[in-house]
Amino acid sequence: MNFNKALENIKVYEAGKPIELVVREFGINDKDIVKLASNENPKGCSPLVQRAVSDIVAKMALYPDDSMMKLKEGLSSHFNIAQNEVIIGAGSDQIIEFAIHAKASSTQTILMNSVTFAMYEVYAAHVGANIVRTKSREHNLEEFYALYLEHKPSIIFICTPNNPTGDATKREELLLFLDKIDSDTLVVVDGAYMEYGMYKDEAYAITPSALIKKYDNVLYLGTFSKAYGLGGMRTGYGIAQEGIINALYKLRPPFNITTLSLEAASVALEDQAFVKDSMELNASEMKRYESFADENSMEYIESYTNFITLLLGTAKNSTDIASALLRRGMIVRDLSGYGLNAIRVTVGTQKQNSRFFELCTEILKG
Amino acid sequence: MNFNKALENIKVYEAGKPIELVVREFGINDKDIVKLASNENPKGCSPLVQRAVSDIVAKMALYPDDSMMKLKEGLSSHFNIAQNEVIIGAGSDQIIEFAIHAKASSTQTILMNSVTFAMYEVYAAHVGANIVRTKSREHNLEEFYALYLEHKPSIIFICTPNNPTGDATKREELLLFLDKIDSDTLVVVDGAYMEYGMYKDEAYAITPSALIKKYDNVLYLGTFSKAYGLGGMRTGYGIAQEGIINALYKLRPPFNITTLSLEAASVALEDQAFVKDSMELNASEMKRYESFADENSMEYIESYTNFITLLLGTAKNSTDIASALLRRGMIVRDLSGYGLNAIRVTVGTQKQNSRFFELCTEILKG
Repeated sequence: MNFNKALENIKVYEAGKPIELVVREFGINDKDIVKLASNENPKGCSPLVQRAVSDIVAKMALYPDDSMMKLKEGLSSHFNIAQNEVIIGAGSDQIIEFAIHAKASSTQTILMNSVTFAMYEVYAAHVGANIVRTKSREHNLEEFYALYLEHKPSIIFICTPNNPTGDATKREELLLFLDKIDSDTLVVVDGAYMEYGMYKDEAYAITPSALIKKYDNVLYLGTFSKAYGLGGMRTGYGIAQEGIINALYKLRPPFNITTLSLEAASVALEDQAFVKDSMELNASEMKRYESFADENSMEYIESYTNFITLLLGTAKNSTDIASALLRRGMIVRDLSGYGLNAIRVTVGTQKQNSRFFELCTEILKG
Repeated sequence: MNFNKALENIKVYEAGKPIELVVREFGINDKDIVKLASNENPKGCSPLVQRAVSDIVAKMALYPDDSMMKLKEGLSSHFNIAQNEVIIGAGSDQIIEFAIHAKASSTQTILMNSVTFAMYEVYAAHVGANIVRTKSREHNLEEFYALYLEHKPSIIFICTPNNPTGDATKREELLLFLDKIDSDTLVVVDGAYMEYGMYKDEAYAITPSALIKKYDNVLYLGTFSKAYGLGGMRTGYGIAQEGIINALYKLRPPFNITTLSLEAASVALEDQAFVKDSMELNASEMKRYESFADENSMEYIESYTNFITLLLGTAKNSTDIASALLRRGMIVRDLSGYGLNAIRVTVGTQKQNSRFFELCTEILKG
């Protein structure tokens, strides 16, 4: 059977066996496997959320409230925006998908950082859009602006804090950049890790209400997968002026969020104490990673997120290091696929991080 | 801001307030509202599923197993197919979306029944495909074949049992039709209500393994939303030969199913006793609807599903009847939007159905 030509340029994302199974094949018990690869919240999710979801498991039989009233009210109140300025997606990934399908096509260009969240490229391939990337590892908005003038992209992705590198863009710098972009170019500001960035340094805090008050071409993205500890529930959101939200809504499949996810996210928003505790744990454990790196003369990228990117220099190879850790039951992300000789490590619990330091020391010596 | 032209032809699906709220505005208490509008399972979902999901609420923090190993093993075993012959979607809706994006475009035609599942048209609009429909209310495969010859569609949708009418297509008839379709035309056999159809009459049982063994151009769809009582968890599947599954996989976003949905669906498959009980309840209550219709000289479409479509003739108007029921706290589906002067009523619990008969009698007399 023949399929649409656009499919030819899409690589199948073939998820293999769960990596826990792979590790088990090395003779390691489940309880000894530590996964610091997906930037999940090491505190799990709020006990209030767990209780609320347990209480409504019988409602799994009922279709979700497709108006998402409760969650929209929560987001509207939390971010001080109107309810018609927000759209909820199956992860912020789905909002990226809507944005690309609404605004890009095979005759258009999408501008993004040299190293950034992989899904921008994946969805760009779906519509066959041309991708232009900056050269610098960290977001350099002067480079972005030069490429903007040269290529007139229909979408610009700014990921701050950036995944998988962990660095961030200062608010003032971003605003000066946005001032120079024409109103028909959609600028997506992906703040999936923003809660961590703003906790670390207020100069990096970008709040969606301020953004969309001033700019009619900005779409801010957020997620419940990180700070709120709901990576398994696939719930994210986009915030923009009503015109953009209405366009994205045209591409939203009905019932794109499960009944339990809506409840989980709504209750998670109400438990800001959990978020604060998560930020505190992350900040104190991050210091341990920095000390570890300094003590072992490893370079790292200063992180505004819940992960740290350790740069391995010329003497070590990130794929080798990641494999050696894997054989010992420690799962981290090798960034060689992003063109970096680096590993990305999620900041876990105190115990998990200690285990990482122990194994990493063992391997670096070996 | 300008958006892609294709969006102009898409109507925003604006979900209003939850209909329960509307009903409450008529001064009706929550506990007196009966919703027989979404073909949800009146038995809810299996207690085993509820327990299994409650047990893993802490796992909401963890990304889903993107290989979906456990659920694929379950489906593979249940349907006697290989694991590379199945793809899992956020509802079978998402498989419809993948199929249309993989195989249709603005230069191609999609063939479907005059009255059928609304999402075929919604996703066809996303790619700007031309839609051709048969004339008969029920699937008439001779009409389908004539239109196939005339329009050479890239996709044909056969919905059996059909939603929102409830009638079904005999297996033998479908197979004879499939024999005549060229192998580059994708035939989607949507069996969302198949468990009900095959319980009622074996001649209507269409099993995916038999289909895909013989036809390399058939994609069978199923869902956990109906017989398995998991409408809120957005989990469906597509079954086809590997070539089709691989093409659809290219369009699948990673992590398209939540962690709890994967668990719910996997356990639901194991509780076939729950499905059987659901079928029995549905069959016996369906008889009551038929008797009610006969006693009130109402016409209906013989149903192979968990809902019944009551035809209102010329003396009554379906919108009026549905509104009158709504004001009394009874929510059913008015089919006027489908060009039918009819209401679609989900077969509920014995008590819910009795309430429907009572209110309907009151309104018909009024």
